[in-house]
Amino acid sequence: MDQLFVWLDLFGVFVFAVSGALAASRKQLDLFGFHFIATVTAIGGGTLRDVLLGQTPVFWVEHPHVIWLTAVAALLVYFLAPAVQSRERVLIWADAAGLAIFAAGGTIAADRAGAPPGVVVMMGAVSATFGGLIRDIVCRETPLLLRKEIYVTAAAVGSALMVVLLELDQPVELGYLVCVLATFTIRGLAIRYALSLPAYRPRPGRETP
Amino acid sequence: MDQLFVWLDLFGVFVFAVSGALAASRKQLDLFGFHFIATVTAIGGGTLRDVLLGQTPVFWVEHPHVIWLTAVAALLVYFLAPAVQSRERVLIWADAAGLAIFAAGGTIAADRAGAPPGVVVMMGAVSATFGGLIRDIVCRETPLLLRKEIYVTAAAVGSALMVVLLELDQPVELGYLVCVLATFTIRGLAIRYALSLPAYRPRPGRETP
Amino acid sequence: MDQLFVWLDLFGVFVFAVSGALAASRKQLDLFGFHFIATVTAIGGGTLRDVLLGQTPVFWVEHPHVIWLTAVAALLVYFLAPAVQSRERVLIWADAAGLAIFAAGGTIAADRAGAPPGVVVMMGAVSATFGGLIRDIVCRETPLLLRKEIYVTAAAVGSALMVVLLELDQPVELGYLVCVLATFTIRGLAIRYALSLPAYRPRPGRETP
Repeated sequence: MDQLFVWLDLFGVFVFAVSGALAASRKQLDLFGFHFIATVTAIGGGTLRDVLLGQTPVFWVEHPHVIWLTAVAALLVYFLAPAVQSRERVLIWADAAGLAIFAAGGTIAADRAGAPPGVVVMMGAVSATFGGLIRDIVCRETPLLLRKEIYVTAAAVGSALMVVLLELDQPVELGYLVCVLATFTIRGLAIRYALSLPAYRPRPGRETP
Repeated sequence: MDQLFVWLDLFGVFVFAVSGALAASRKQLDLFGFHFIATVTAIGGGTLRDVLLGQTPVFWVEHPHVIWLTAVAALLVYFLAPAVQSRERVLIWADAAGLAIFAAGGTIAADRAGAPPGVVVMMGAVSATFGGLIRDIVCRETPLLLRKEIYVTAAAVGSALMVVLLELDQPVELGYLVCVLATFTIRGLAIRYALSLPAYRPRPGRETP
Repeated sequence: MDQLFVWLDLFGVFVFAVSGALAASRKQLDLFGFHFIATVTAIGGGTLRDVLLGQTPVFWVEHPHVIWLTAVAALLVYFLAPAVQSRERVLIWADAAGLAIFAAGGTIAADRAGAPPGVVVMMGAVSATFGGLIRDIVCRETPLLLRKEIYVTAAAVGSALMVVLLELDQPVELGYLVCVLATFTIRGLAIRYALSLPAYRPRPGRETP
């Protein structure tokens, strides 16, 4: 079963790498630039999680095939992106798939490292969101995090559901599945219907009494 | 006495979280966005310090109540910010209080980890300033660091005074107090009177001889 | 021979610190601001490498003279920058020298830490490029990474050549020399002749069939 998680995790790396390479295509970088952005996007969140938990060397030092996988994603996007009609849509959905898978993977990793429940949820959210955040900061785009549609929330809810299931001694596979489905569904609905939680609004009437 | 430091540190977490949530309010994020920005602001500096010193898992993995505290700060700001007349002023003063407390807390932590004096001062400055720097970068605002008024300098001076007192075998409580007061006073005067060190000025007359 | 590497590494710290201080001069910061930007630029890449490899406390905690060296660089630039005719050119060439030396130093450090070859090359590139990337993000300038001219590629090629030589049991001194020369030559040619790899170009003809 762990084997399945490994494959899903690689799929998550791949889709986040694609999202990074798509961002690089909008900046018209060269092939190494594609690989660079693809890699920081794909491994940024999990790397930060490992560093914070003290699980170093970080995961990809011992699993360097991850970096070859991001190279493949960069190559594919470099040569195929022009064929993709609407790159921004693809980027956003690739990001959503990565978000769901990394929320679950990050939750498992933090739980196994013995972190307390609140921290596990945070690590799930960190694993899921920081790669994309670094991508957006390096590429000088408005972080997806800062847009109105539900984003961190989706990962946090998915991760929290998984933590509850684990606390109830449910099998980790069930928790994983629930986390991925919940995160992707929430984020997907948010994208599709532009859903957002009530955003803070300044109320001028009360500010200037 | 250590107990007092813990409470002061929590107060520092709280005011930095408030400053993060106020930045989120200017970006009109939702409640989870408030919590996210509040948390990275409040724990960013101390987290980086712990990572650099190799003190992992970082402090809040074992003290997860920190994350609940940032949630409380986020909630309060979300519902009360409209009542605050001048949010930018509040943000700047909350940031100044956090700066002073974290300069002292970071100095103690680095000193206990056995770092040499120059590095201890640097860690004090890092603990005090990086949370706010991450806040400003994620929110795409001009970092307070880059503004003209004295900022890093205040934390570095406070931390250096504390290191001198510790080297002179003075009690850590005295060092803490001096560091907090010195940092807050310098930063406060800088805010109040727009004090700045002589900024670098290009001298065109010498550039085009 | 190791002694020589130490001196070259200090030279790399110095030139990157100069490039950071020059960026600070364009933002018209004060002297502490100069030191801050100089320091994060000079130690950012190597610090990230150490953190990722789990080699903590990071290198400058035990070699604090590095921070004094960045202070000297900051002071020099603060008082002498007006005499420098074309600051941007100097910044770019100082950055190129730092890039070459840190690619080699990072490659050695990662190789000694026992990382696999692909990861060693990546760590060489990380050591060489992240300090400058942080400088550009903090100063809100377009990252050199994102410009068209060859940048990461130069460090990656230099580091890869060194890894090949080390795998062929060649002396580390030869690898170091080849890495520095290759990286600096590639980057230098890229600056001088505005060389770039084929950048990704959207092909509208194929996008709207």
